[in-house]
Amino acid sequence: MFPAVLPERFRSILLKRLPVLSWLPRYNLEYAISDAVAGVTVGLTIIPQAIAYASLAGMPPQYGLYSAISGGFVYIILGTCKDVSIGLTALLALLTSTYTRNTNPDMAVLLCFLSGCIELLCGVLQVGFLVDFISVPVVNGFTSAAAIIIASSQLKGILGIRFQSDGFIDTWRQLGTNIWRARLWDMVLGVCCIVTLLSLRKLKDVKPSSSEDGKPPSGRTKVLEKLAWFMSTARNGMVVVICAAIAVVFHGKDQEPFILTGVIDPGLPPFGPPPFSTSFGNTTYTFVDMCRYMGSGIAVVPIISILGNVAIAKAFSSGMVVDATQEMIALGVCNILGSFLRSMPVNGSFSCSAVNNASGVRTQLGAMYTGIIVILALSLLTPYFYFIPQATLSAVIICAVLFMVDVEILGPIWRYSRLDLVPLLSTFITSLWLGVEVGIVVGVVVDLVFLLYFTARPKVTVEKVTSGSDPEYMLVTPSTGLQFPAVDFIREVVTKASLPEEERARQLPIVVDCRHIHRADYTAAQGLQALIRDFRQSERHVILHNLKPTVFSTLGGVCSSDLTYSNTHEELMDTLRGLHTGAEVSQL
Amino acid sequence: MFPAVLPERFRSILLKRLPVLSWLPRYNLEYAISDAVAGVTVGLTIIPQAIAYASLAGMPPQYGLYSAISGGFVYIILGTCKDVSIGLTALLALLTSTYTRNTNPDMAVLLCFLSGCIELLCGVLQVGFLVDFISVPVVNGFTSAAAIIIASSQLKGILGIRFQSDGFIDTWRQLGTNIWRARLWDMVLGVCCIVTLLSLRKLKDVKPSSSEDGKPPSGRTKVLEKLAWFMSTARNGMVVVICAAIAVVFHGKDQEPFILTGVIDPGLPPFGPPPFSTSFGNTTYTFVDMCRYMGSGIAVVPIISILGNVAIAKAFSSGMVVDATQEMIALGVCNILGSFLRSMPVNGSFSCSAVNNASGVRTQLGAMYTGIIVILALSLLTPYFYFIPQATLSAVIICAVLFMVDVEILGPIWRYSRLDLVPLLSTFITSLWLGVEVGIVVGVVVDLVFLLYFTARPKVTVEKVTSGSDPEYMLVTPSTGLQFPAVDFIREVVTKASLPEEERARQLPIVVDCRHIHRADYTAAQGLQALIRDFRQSERHVILHNLKPTVFSTLGGVCSSDLTYSNTHEELMDTLRGLHTGAEVSQL
Repeated sequence: MFPAVLPERFRSILLKRLPVLSWLPRYNLEYAISDAVAGVTVGLTIIPQAIAYASLAGMPPQYGLYSAISGGFVYIILGTCKDVSIGLTALLALLTSTYTRNTNPDMAVLLCFLSGCIELLCGVLQVGFLVDFISVPVVNGFTSAAAIIIASSQLKGILGIRFQSDGFIDTWRQLGTNIWRARLWDMVLGVCCIVTLLSLRKLKDVKPSSSEDGKPPSGRTKVLEKLAWFMSTARNGMVVVICAAIAVVFHGKDQEPFILTGVIDPGLPPFGPPPFSTSFGNTTYTFVDMCRYMGSGIAVVPIISILGNVAIAKAFSSGMVVDATQEMIALGVCNILGSFLRSMPVNGSFSCSAVNNASGVRTQLGAMYTGIIVILALSLLTPYFYFIPQATLSAVIICAVLFMVDVEILGPIWRYSRLDLVPLLSTFITSLWLGVEVGIVVGVVVDLVFLLYFTARPKVTVEKVTSGSDPEYMLVTPSTGLQFPAVDFIREVVTKASLPEEERARQLPIVVDCRHIHRADYTAAQGLQALIRDFRQSERHVILHNLKPTVFSTLGGVCSSDLTYSNTHEELMDTLRGLHTGAEVSQL
Repeated sequence: MFPAVLPERFRSILLKRLPVLSWLPRYNLEYAISDAVAGVTVGLTIIPQAIAYASLAGMPPQYGLYSAISGGFVYIILGTCKDVSIGLTALLALLTSTYTRNTNPDMAVLLCFLSGCIELLCGVLQVGFLVDFISVPVVNGFTSAAAIIIASSQLKGILGIRFQSDGFIDTWRQLGTNIWRARLWDMVLGVCCIVTLLSLRKLKDVKPSSSEDGKPPSGRTKVLEKLAWFMSTARNGMVVVICAAIAVVFHGKDQEPFILTGVIDPGLPPFGPPPFSTSFGNTTYTFVDMCRYMGSGIAVVPIISILGNVAIAKAFSSGMVVDATQEMIALGVCNILGSFLRSMPVNGSFSCSAVNNASGVRTQLGAMYTGIIVILALSLLTPYFYFIPQATLSAVIICAVLFMVDVEILGPIWRYSRLDLVPLLSTFITSLWLGVEVGIVVGVVVDLVFLLYFTARPKVTVEKVTSGSDPEYMLVTPSTGLQFPAVDFIREVVTKASLPEEERARQLPIVVDCRHIHRADYTAAQGLQALIRDFRQSERHVILHNLKPTVFSTLGGVCSSDLTYSNTHEELMDTLRGLHTGAEVSQL
């Protein structure tokens, strides 16, 4: 193909950075049909979710749809994983609402642009490894808390109450004081929607009875299965359409029974650079003012986006290595370009990606059909979106996030890795109490403290070795690298352990088995030298056994003449016998 | 002795927390004479240094002496190391001046009280292990930079110029613009003092020629040696007395040739609680205002104090394990009680402790004599302190800190542990550029980044094992613990390595040698499970070899049925043969 004339190195970089080049040349009709089916299915899922998440983020509903356009097209060219579907997610909507509360959409669009820039920068600087420092328990505590916060914030939609709330605790306080203002019909509709959505979700798992015995399923069963699968997958769209129809029927009465979505601006968003200044509440905000308003959001939103995207790509990679750098670049361009189309921050959506995968998508091109469906909806369907009841959208959100709360993880963690409960619970509790953006920072810090603690306090085993006629010695085995925070601890352990009960053992040489030590820094080498000198003062010898070459060069250089070492058991025994004779000679 | 009637456990705690109980019962006349000699010698060293460091901290000179009183008495009861001499140090004086610049002594006294409280708290909470996270290169970069900053700040004293400066760079800028205002006689005196002090310092190392051959030194040589040692040790006091005498001679002339110390308030400081509010510059500061003014100093000063004290105690412990917790408690009480006597923050002084050790101190009681000398000086000598020239004090400080700049460390670090240059130089440069308090934080962060990097990117070796008739396999050996930031990296390395050039090897089972893995967390266990599943998809097996029991329980619990493992070479071979047969059967 076209890159074939290029030098090999440049060609491999091009293939790596433009993944489209690797699959587009092989594209065929079969792929195209599969992609079209999957893309349209995802489109039907993404439209109701986009409107719902826009309201969760406190934005006009059309912004949800704007956010669903550009990401997919960019991901076709730059994305590495065919299943990933880029769009608004509940988590990013929650974060966007946290950082742009009480402002106008301009703020969210600028946040999208800045997040994109930071994601692109992370990709270019290859700092994707930072994502490794967010452990599974922290992610779990964070997403569970976010899901509970989001579900709580939507209860007011189900109840038909309106209020502005400031965090999880405030939401429940206000729900308590405003409960008497709940509207009957909104509640009825909301509860019905939740029940319907949950039932339809279950439908996918129900197998017709005939398939349980060995016989191959009949044609009718196959159709039934297909229908059940489609109803389950398109449940959000179906419920929204039916509820909107009900709302149309009751429309025009004296008192509207449901709170409706209201007017959605029709048509595509204007194409233009993101707003670098804005005004609301009689104040004009410059670019700097806007950045100051969003504060840490400019860092938190891209980190969470990257984390989500890499996690989804890994989940669907089926054993292939995920190129985190390329994912960050793709995500960055998605958001930068998105901000020119007035998008809010977007990343890979787990639910949409799962639908994409289940619908049999073959390449990233499926996203094109999703994008076309969204554009068509914006051009033609907005008058009908007016009638979507808020309670229905709240039900859609609640049913989507409910399964993000993962309680099952607690069992294995409690039984097999209890210490991991500390980062999990501290993330969960701080997220609920002070907000998800604080929660994730607290979780990561707790995790790092543990990591550093285990670096500073390695396991050190000390034993007295006696075997037949061989010389006796004290064997000290540190379990891990000799890094600076550990060296004083090791020195203490060795000093304490070298003073055993029996008087005779106090004269034994110390053998430090360095087989597990793969790295030593200057501080560690100095500490070891101090240890050797300490023992020399009481006329005892320290022998370093099984030194790795790199460690030997550091220790040998820093400790210079003080070092006694051995590489094999025989060498060790010879050295020990030599010490023994030497000691006897000096006693003569 | 008296604690003998107490229960054993309580008695050992009492001995640990009141170290005086362990040595006082054995105290005798010989000890008393040695302690008195050493204590008086230290007193003669500490008085000129105290006055000099007070001026370095921007405080009235008597505050330096106030700071030298209480610490020693407290350390007698609570201190663990006989050689440590508590008092003002150049580093703490520099930090005090940084955090209390342009205020009055009340601020420094409150800083002393708060530092003491934090030190005591650190001792009680046993968080002394935090000191382990400050590596030798960081300490080195920090003290070298501090020494250069201090020496630079004293050049104006030598030149006889007066100005207020704001940091290292500003000092040099102001020296440049004010150099034309230099005063001749101050300069002459300052340079003479520096030359004299450096020569006297060298005197200690000069051995009379007769001692070089084998003969024992004669009586006269011994006396000469003793005299040289005394002149070298008491050099600060001697130079200050001589210069003050010169100043007295020239006093009363029309124009005073030297800038003098001026009036020192005579008598002991008033005993009373530290000031919890103060006023200067027509403003009254409440306790909260004062704390806000000192800001991070409230944390930095105690950390540096603890670091210094523990380091000195370790240097003089001659192989005994230093009880860092007890050192922190002692230091905390020294500062808290000190603040009742209007002391500035104090800690162990390396130079005074070295004098103490060299003078043959036997127990902590030596500090009592030092304290008495300081009290006598405050009561009787203050009228004479008026005449001490500032240039002389600057010379004393410069000669004291000059040897804190350690260039020799650079050689071994460059040759054997080059990576350690990064924390060293970043600490050094940021300390000079932005101040020592920023420098140490930057150094520690750089160090932690390295530590975390090596935790996240362990060495993983991958090799193909072929030996005779035994089944072939790919052997993967991670070098260190399976902690969460490393697991995705290990997964990637294994996945990449498992795709060797030869087609045949692509079917080989993977054996992960876990002998170096002493701990696995939940994230790591999940990652391992994902790895095993990835390979199972391509019908390859992963065998965990040499699992430690604790790691096995975590992995076994989380990965449940997916685990294949072996503990000995025979078990491994049996398992591999089993897989082989299984594969053949399934192919039939």
